[in-house]
Amino acid sequence: MAELTEAKKNTHIKKLENITGKDNILYDYDSCYAYSTDSTNIIKDNEIADIVIFPENTEQVSKIMKYANENNIPVTARAAGTSVCGACLPKKGGIVLDFAKMNKIIEVNKDNLICIAEPGVVIEDLKKAAEKYNLFYPPDPSNLKVSMLGGSIGLSSGGPHTFKYGSTKDYIIDLEVVLADGTILHTGSSCSKDVTGYNMTQLFVGSEGTLGIITRATIRLIPKPEDTRVLLAYFDTLEDTAKTANDIISNLITPSVIDLLDKNTLATTESFYPSGLLTDKTAALLIEIDGFKSTLDNQYEKIIEICKNNNSSYIQTAKTKEEEEKIWITRRSSFGATAKLAPNVLTEDVVVPRDNIVTLVKGIWNICSKYNLKTCIMGHIGDGNIHPNIALDLRNTEERKNFEKAKAELFELALSLNGRLSGEHGIGCEKSYFINKALDPNNLKLMKQIKNMLDPKNILNPEKIF
Amino acid sequence: MAELTEAKKNTHIKKLENITGKDNILYDYDSCYAYSTDSTNIIKDNEIADIVIFPENTEQVSKIMKYANENNIPVTARAAGTSVCGACLPKKGGIVLDFAKMNKIIEVNKDNLICIAEPGVVIEDLKKAAEKYNLFYPPDPSNLKVSMLGGSIGLSSGGPHTFKYGSTKDYIIDLEVVLADGTILHTGSSCSKDVTGYNMTQLFVGSEGTLGIITRATIRLIPKPEDTRVLLAYFDTLEDTAKTANDIISNLITPSVIDLLDKNTLATTESFYPSGLLTDKTAALLIEIDGFKSTLDNQYEKIIEICKNNNSSYIQTAKTKEEEEKIWITRRSSFGATAKLAPNVLTEDVVVPRDNIVTLVKGIWNICSKYNLKTCIMGHIGDGNIHPNIALDLRNTEERKNFEKAKAELFELALSLNGRLSGEHGIGCEKSYFINKALDPNNLKLMKQIKNMLDPKNILNPEKIF
Repeated sequence: MAELTEAKKNTHIKKLENITGKDNILYDYDSCYAYSTDSTNIIKDNEIADIVIFPENTEQVSKIMKYANENNIPVTARAAGTSVCGACLPKKGGIVLDFAKMNKIIEVNKDNLICIAEPGVVIEDLKKAAEKYNLFYPPDPSNLKVSMLGGSIGLSSGGPHTFKYGSTKDYIIDLEVVLADGTILHTGSSCSKDVTGYNMTQLFVGSEGTLGIITRATIRLIPKPEDTRVLLAYFDTLEDTAKTANDIISNLITPSVIDLLDKNTLATTESFYPSGLLTDKTAALLIEIDGFKSTLDNQYEKIIEICKNNNSSYIQTAKTKEEEEKIWITRRSSFGATAKLAPNVLTEDVVVPRDNIVTLVKGIWNICSKYNLKTCIMGHIGDGNIHPNIALDLRNTEERKNFEKAKAELFELALSLNGRLSGEHGIGCEKSYFINKALDPNNLKLMKQIKNMLDPKNILNPEKIF
Repeated sequence: MAELTEAKKNTHIKKLENITGKDNILYDYDSCYAYSTDSTNIIKDNEIADIVIFPENTEQVSKIMKYANENNIPVTARAAGTSVCGACLPKKGGIVLDFAKMNKIIEVNKDNLICIAEPGVVIEDLKKAAEKYNLFYPPDPSNLKVSMLGGSIGLSSGGPHTFKYGSTKDYIIDLEVVLADGTILHTGSSCSKDVTGYNMTQLFVGSEGTLGIITRATIRLIPKPEDTRVLLAYFDTLEDTAKTANDIISNLITPSVIDLLDKNTLATTESFYPSGLLTDKTAALLIEIDGFKSTLDNQYEKIIEICKNNNSSYIQTAKTKEEEEKIWITRRSSFGATAKLAPNVLTEDVVVPRDNIVTLVKGIWNICSKYNLKTCIMGHIGDGNIHPNIALDLRNTEERKNFEKAKAELFELALSLNGRLSGEHGIGCEKSYFINKALDPNNLKLMKQIKNMLDPKNILNPEKIF
């Protein structure tokens, strides 16, 4: 829409104001700029929204889509804008639909174990609403204090608890979706077990706003685990670290969290947020188990034994909730610490079958060393999902070029290990250039056919995924 | 294909024999009849396969599909033929593709927690293959000793363990699919956490062979629970039964099974397989919990307390594996017992949000009493999924008419309670006439668009779902 005349743009604004009222539309440059960013911090002058709209209900979204479709205006849905893959960047300008005003939790139904919510609900608020009824919404993206349901569904985001509990896709059982032409549809039902027709819900989950706009979701909840235990175990080799994860699972224990922190993560975190982390170890595992209080001690002891058998050089246990929290703070600080190494920090998200995890992590160390990039690796080892957090100065052309080269090698490496480009962050526009290499060409062709069928004018979040 | 001349049919057979060899094709009437049935026992003379093919590999399936598509020959995939909704009936004749010869478990990978298998693998064999490595494949359709993976994926089948563990869809992470035109594609990867592009895997799971033919699946496994405890609690009212289920879950306990058996099921089972079941109670709950041995006693005691608080008039506990097995045999015998009431037994599969379960069960009793149908109700109360097993003589026109009327009223009732036509058995051709009422019309339209896109000649399992 960047080439629109001022007169044409003003006509659009007037028509759209008729739908949502003047208070729900912004179109000054600064506002449009502000709503054209995400956590990648990569923004280009010609990729700025022309209009930002804050719809208040589904009917408005439907009318906006109908108008946009008739007038070939690109529409990019936006929740909290915390995407790390450029998923909500309006690459072709047009309308940004921001869901800040559709932020209601409509219902928590304790007996049906469901919650109905709008896309602007903050994930933490959703989790708290469930907890009031002793229920649990497990997905916990690291930015859950700000990130919102709509984006989380669009990207099927995960978090540390995914290994035991699955990711967002596993909790969405019904979506209200507005299609490109304004059609409103409901994909599922309030029944968590339902095989009445094709699974349209999962077609939209993870589709990054390219197939439709999500305006409401029905979410499956589960009973909340009564208690947790946490420990941090250090290892001198990656092989021991990985074998520990395997051995825990072979012993029938499913940790609620089993996260890897590499030597750089440990050193960087300790240097900015000193808490007594050991910085001379190759890696550490943060392991959390959950369930009934009475069931945890045995598992905890067994895990300690397994860590020792795998040459863990030190195990930081936690006897109290305060000690547990101390371990968690360390883990949560690791990203912030990395961010202090340079003006920007970019997070990758490759995933491999778990038996390739050692090769992957060593490969990432090599690639980043080759390109002289400061990298702290964190990951959900249970899922084989690894996040290299790369600190750099995006204004430094050399560093940026090196980052791009390293990223391409990282993707090649993951694919060579039967892995994928993304476990929980999505593809957006930051990885889309690699999708041809990552997917079976016939599968990719099918995805494109579906996209073309649902959005023939390609107005929904263009230039994303492929 | 029923109208084909003998000459034309012979040409097809010759061409197909070139693909699979003569030994893998049947076309005599008796064989074709035998492979045109399923557990509904409803078969019509003009709905018989013309050719039954037993492909040995994906390449053969691809060539068969290419030939069938070019020649407008309907193709219906068949695994064990245990469908109870007519999912594998060749409504328009043509080819039945039977997967008995593609029955290999290719790999169980203990560290990656996956299994790769062909569609002809029997579910019980898959479960046992996982158990060898202390791993668990939870879906357990009641016919798991014969039913096969391919059908189970096509219908996203469930079973008693679904409430805690989810159904088939929750365990399939990659499919090799042959499309209508013979194109082979892979929908996912060996990474259980993967958001690289749209979720094509779940488009095919539950699509009943109408969108493509599944030739291989990658299955997610989980650590096997160490132990189980089981009890059977009797209640005088449905209200107490349902409240018990709610209270157990409110107490943070997630039973691995929480199945309802109604008064008719108890009486019928006891009359044919006497085991001391109480026959003067309104309903019973079979409750199983699983996990580490050390964790079960507390939960078991708590469940007993909750049952008592909800006026359970008798609780049959199990102290040994033998006593547990005795309870399970009762539950497993219930379908067989119902089948002894009349020459045929037809199973329905409606699902409602759990707070409507009492209204649903009472409604079913009323409907069946109105139409004088012998009905034993069994169900997975945790999921709100209820199976009325209706015993009748299909040769008796009056009874059959009554059954059809009762079925329509059952569906109306379920829909009026925000429910759905099927929780785990699928739609097939037995419920397809009701799908217009059950689905949002825009959602149904989308499903039909996808079907038309993937199978423009409508050769894949025609007349199913819608």
